[in-house]
Amino acid sequence: MNSAELVDRLLAGERRALARLLTYVEDGSRERLREVVRLLHPHTGSAHLVGITGSPGVGKSTLTSALISEWRGRGRRVAVLAVDPSSPFSGGALLGDRVRMQDHVLDDGVFIRSMASRGHLGGLSWATPQALLVLDAAGFDLVVVETVGVGQAEVEIASMADTTVVTLAPGMGDAIQAAKAGILEVADVFCVNKADHDGTDRLVRDLRGMQELGAGGRGAVAGGRGSDDAAERPAPIRTTVAAREEGIAELADAIDEHRAWLTESGLLEDRRLGRARVQLREIALGEVRSRFAALGEGALADGLAAAVAARRLDPYTAADRMIAGLDGLDGLDA
Amino acid sequence: MNSAELVDRLLAGERRALARLLTYVEDGSRERLREVVRLLHPHTGSAHLVGITGSPGVGKSTLTSALISEWRGRGRRVAVLAVDPSSPFSGGALLGDRVRMQDHVLDDGVFIRSMASRGHLGGLSWATPQALLVLDAAGFDLVVVETVGVGQAEVEIASMADTTVVTLAPGMGDAIQAAKAGILEVADVFCVNKADHDGTDRLVRDLRGMQELGAGGRGAVAGGRGSDDAAERPAPIRTTVAAREEGIAELADAIDEHRAWLTESGLLEDRRLGRARVQLREIALGEVRSRFAALGEGALADGLAAAVAARRLDPYTAADRMIAGLDGLDGLDA
Repeated sequence: MNSAELVDRLLAGERRALARLLTYVEDGSRERLREVVRLLHPHTGSAHLVGITGSPGVGKSTLTSALISEWRGRGRRVAVLAVDPSSPFSGGALLGDRVRMQDHVLDDGVFIRSMASRGHLGGLSWATPQALLVLDAAGFDLVVVETVGVGQAEVEIASMADTTVVTLAPGMGDAIQAAKAGILEVADVFCVNKADHDGTDRLVRDLRGMQELGAGGRGAVAGGRGSDDAAERPAPIRTTVAAREEGIAELADAIDEHRAWLTESGLLEDRRLGRARVQLREIALGEVRSRFAALGEGALADGLAAAVAARRLDPYTAADRMIAGLDGLDGLDA
Repeated sequence: MNSAELVDRLLAGERRALARLLTYVEDGSRERLREVVRLLHPHTGSAHLVGITGSPGVGKSTLTSALISEWRGRGRRVAVLAVDPSSPFSGGALLGDRVRMQDHVLDDGVFIRSMASRGHLGGLSWATPQALLVLDAAGFDLVVVETVGVGQAEVEIASMADTTVVTLAPGMGDAIQAAKAGILEVADVFCVNKADHDGTDRLVRDLRGMQELGAGGRGAVAGGRGSDDAAERPAPIRTTVAAREEGIAELADAIDEHRAWLTESGLLEDRRLGRARVQLREIALGEVRSRFAALGEGALADGLAAAVAARRLDPYTAADRMIAGLDGLDGLDA
């Protein structure tokens, strides 16, 4: 089946086409990916992209599962992309969690995919935006990306989401630690899960304190991102007990309200513009890198390298000529 | 002082000019670096570039220090670039080692520089080849790069050296572990240091065994690198007790013999050609990346990102236009 047929079937709601397209995105050739993205792109832009992040143990997957149930109850179609290797979606789960996920397996309005074990080094930040495009085009109302709250990946993936939910739990390290890890800054909504445990009040109080200091939540620094000051909005804090489905409706409301605020304030457009800019640069750099790889095998590279090795040409001048040679190579990737 | 004056003083043997040029290489602007490399490049190519690698604890720095004494006794000028954070050259040393290094401080034919704490992420593999150029142009007969034998950096730095000495010691992990770490494959010469310790014979025997299996030493696989089979040459194994300067003359001989063999077999030219190719690609990619960064701020990027965000253009087509826009931006870095 060619890419155009696959995309047609995806748009018609065929589940197998969806799975195959995601596989192309993860493993396929650059040319195939390019073709697929080109075909899909005009059909994207309507899904609400929600990032759910937090350290292992805060209960992200249970929370995601509870949110799925809540959203399904509201008639919304939901896709989940799990890029967290400790997630039950990725098979790295406790039995209880896995059973909970089974609730959604037979529901046609839910699609769950793990990308945890697939991406090669640096591959997730490359494959995730393309996978989001596929799920968006497939017509899901909500597309959730679940990530573990450690390191650079969070910040990158948060930058792909319209709304980022930072999940914390009492006893899993305090708010100050989370601040140090840099995950508070990406929050549009805070969720304090396991709110039946000791220390919940204190965690909520600490988060509020940090917001007053201007450190907590992406909304709090919206003014700094080039928008007008009226766009400032501290990230709301919701408490949940996901395992008992408590507080989930309120959390879902907070996520909806954030999206509505993004739209009204014009920030949604700003964020999508910023995202397009990043995506553009990543694709262009990837393209140039692959052309260089091809160049590295060619006569131009041989000649330039020989001239450098023989000290007839300095490497910077040679590099300039190599760059100039890129243009004539447009046919290479055909 | 401008770059041309600095380079003139370097070529005249001025030590302060050398130190300043190395600082430019490590911290300077891209434009300054470009200018310096362009001026230096014609004066390079005569130094013997020697890589010394091995795990922490095998005694690399003591060995390097002993080799310096040996080479000085033979009337050679020696520069050392330490890119190993545990090296005494980098200040991370035991007192005894540091005192040993002091022997060379007042010798005008020796220059030692640490790059360990300077390079930012991925910066060493960028700065090291340029620093080698400076030391080469400064007229040192031998330029040594000392690295700790862990990970990808070794392979990269080995690819910059004419002769790579892999240093092992009995009791510091066996040859099979070293094979797994991938450092045996980069060896042109093996040095088993601390050869007065138990286990030396066994370590030497294991290395020989692995060479017979075709796994030990870069020479052993030279035929696979595109040269004729006659160029095969198992890496010689030398035993030393560096702290007592035992076996050092034999090791220095092995390093000399390797260089002579490289020259006679034509492999030196092959290696330098391969190195020029890698350097060329790195510089060209760095250049393109910085032009993209400039592009990211410009009107073209704004327009393309807006078109992608609005779904009027898919990101691949937009990336193509961005690449096409690179050429017109040659003036940007002037």
